[in-house]
Amino acid sequence: MKIPVLPNERVDDLQFKGLKIIQQPSSFCFGTDAVLLSHFADVRRGDHVVDLGTGTGIIPILLAGRTEAAAITGIEIQEAMAEMAARSIALNRLEDRIKILHGDLKEAPEILGRGYLDVVVSNPPYKKQGSGKVSREDSQAISRHELRCTLEDVIQASSNLLRSGGRFCLIHQSDRMMDILFLMRAHQIEPKRIRLIHSSVRQAPNLILLEGVRDGKTYLNWMPPLIIREQDGSYTSEINEIYHRGEVL
Amino acid sequence: MKIPVLPNERVDDLQFKGLKIIQQPSSFCFGTDAVLLSHFADVRRGDHVVDLGTGTGIIPILLAGRTEAAAITGIEIQEAMAEMAARSIALNRLEDRIKILHGDLKEAPEILGRGYLDVVVSNPPYKKQGSGKVSREDSQAISRHELRCTLEDVIQASSNLLRSGGRFCLIHQSDRMMDILFLMRAHQIEPKRIRLIHSSVRQAPNLILLEGVRDGKTYLNWMPPLIIREQDGSYTSEINEIYHRGEVL
Repeated sequence: MKIPVLPNERVDDLQFKGLKIIQQPSSFCFGTDAVLLSHFADVRRGDHVVDLGTGTGIIPILLAGRTEAAAITGIEIQEAMAEMAARSIALNRLEDRIKILHGDLKEAPEILGRGYLDVVVSNPPYKKQGSGKVSREDSQAISRHELRCTLEDVIQASSNLLRSGGRFCLIHQSDRMMDILFLMRAHQIEPKRIRLIHSSVRQAPNLILLEGVRDGKTYLNWMPPLIIREQDGSYTSEINEIYHRGEVL
Repeated sequence: MKIPVLPNERVDDLQFKGLKIIQQPSSFCFGTDAVLLSHFADVRRGDHVVDLGTGTGIIPILLAGRTEAAAITGIEIQEAMAEMAARSIALNRLEDRIKILHGDLKEAPEILGRGYLDVVVSNPPYKKQGSGKVSREDSQAISRHELRCTLEDVIQASSNLLRSGGRFCLIHQSDRMMDILFLMRAHQIEPKRIRLIHSSVRQAPNLILLEGVRDGKTYLNWMPPLIIREQDGSYTSEINEIYHRGEVL
């Protein structure tokens, strides 16, 4: 079956296990964040996984390639985006492992059931409502700003979706760390593993990777910093490994 | 006046502005932590500063050399240690700027007054009560384990000592970050500036430097990582700067 690709869309080769993705170059394309989160997430054989705010579906596709997850559901509030993501899943013939749902992540626990999932991942909008200028509620704005969901919505939905012991994996801006840690604990997701992402070793971190465990015990494990570029501007060997050597795009 | 030095003590030259310190090589000597905290602390001209759990008095001495603080008080619960620290202050002729108090930091707000100080610094015992073996309540054990004070005691005393807008600067183990952040916020000290210390860039951090502001607004500023050693084992240029180039020991 031929999967339709619209005139304003492009099929990109992920250069990883033959996987592909449909994107709109004029709209929101997936970024480094999605790749780094997919690499960070601890997804095990047979796991049932949800990606809250899946966008193009990049995280479910990468996780399907990288892990032995049994089932991955991507939830996306923008109908056209969800429809495009579903075509990417079909293009990769991953319909047996990945489902795309058009819906509001706040309703995910009602739709998918409470206390059932092994892993929830999310690369949510980073910008607080009211911070920065949002000219229109277009697709890029919805992906970047907390217009349709707040950080607390994401964490609350994750808490309700996860089984006890289930894992929540998030990428966000590092200057939101206080909010993230306090909201996670308030919703019974104990922060357990943390990694900071720095553009270079001389710079403050700009992004944070966090894993929390539903009803987990109090103990935080730090990982080494994830440095994107060497001093000379070239990618670090770790980034090259994540992007090229058989891991992900 | 000749300052007495006991047979089990040694006078070490801090190689910084002619400053010296008396230590007992067989007991607890100051470490990198005190130097890094003194360097991190934002102490301004005319500030009134307290060091909770001052030990040998190293932090007040370094701050007296580095800053234009008007008055620095070091509080130490171990009588012999406080007495030795007071002799170090006299040896450096810093009695007009530094006072050493023998006492319990939990009583510091009653002794020094509430809501008055500009800056509180602390390099407290790192080990939780009950973690690790503590054979005897000797001087090293009291300096390293939370035998005489808990992390919450330190933060609560700091909160009571600081004026609104006053700064709290702490060094601690990075795996205690959750406790530190939650206790700070619970005691009205908002975390504002954070720096992680790594033995090398490939390693997870082991120490954390944190500055909080009494009644401060919510916004966390990340600093670049502080890396101790290069991959070849030599000190990084930043550590060399902190230790040798006219800054501190």
